[in-house]
Amino acid sequence: MHLIIDGFAANRKTLESEDLIYELLDHYPSQIGMTKVEPPRVRKYIGSKPEDWGISGFVLIAESHISIHTFPERRYVNIDIFSCKDFDSEQAIRELKDRFEFTEIKSYLLNRGLEYSHMETADLKAV
Amino acid sequence: MHLIIDGFAANRKTLESEDLIYELLDHYPSQIGMTKVEPPRVRKYIGSKPEDWGISGFVLIAESHISIHTFPERRYVNIDIFSCKDFDSEQAIRELKDRFEFTEIKSYLLNRGLEYSHMETADLKAV
Repeated sequence: MHLIIDGFAANRKTLESEDLIYELLDHYPSQIGMTKVEPPRVRKYIGSKPEDWGISGFVLIAESHISIHTFPERRYVNIDIFSCKDFDSEQAIRELKDRFEFTEIKSYLLNRGLEYSHMETADLKAV
Repeated sequence: MHLIIDGFAANRKTLESEDLIYELLDHYPSQIGMTKVEPPRVRKYIGSKPEDWGISGFVLIAESHISIHTFPERRYVNIDIFSCKDFDSEQAIRELKDRFEFTEIKSYLLNRGLEYSHMETADLKAV
């Protein structure tokens, strides 16, 4: 199951902090029933346009991953939660809404991973 | 732009090799016009079911990432190419087909990232 969340967020402090993104990636997997397999990797990115800087973070979880890319000047964030185990996507969205204080959000759920590896049409939907 | 590829692959040598997945993540970004911002992270994963072991790899590219999760015993692989810059998704799929020798493949293209951050309905399609 792969939950994709793109949105605008009011909590600039979280968007611009390597420490807060690290802490989120460090604790979030267990909050939603997943197992981290190594510590998160988080780094600041400075793009060709100075206003597009941000924080990129990634954590490997059992068989899959969680990633976050923030753009503090745009108040924008892209989040992926990809797990071979099913998880409560509504709870996941709720917790991220609390953390980032989203003002606008688009999210998608894609059934993928070993359990969905049969090659019939995948269930891909906006949520 | 986010290209998602799930498939069954004949090239077991690639599926089971940390070195080959590392080399792919190390060279593939520049092949499709992307800029790596740090070396790839690759590790072997051994799950609760022994037959579900595999290789997980991840590389941060400018503003986004590429990830690969393989399951050699299942001949199965999940690939994500998420870039804020548009890229030639057909070329990307072609090159991965050569590498993994896919026998079955499902792929999706999702318009996301800064350039698509306007909150209208996203263009999400099977490709």
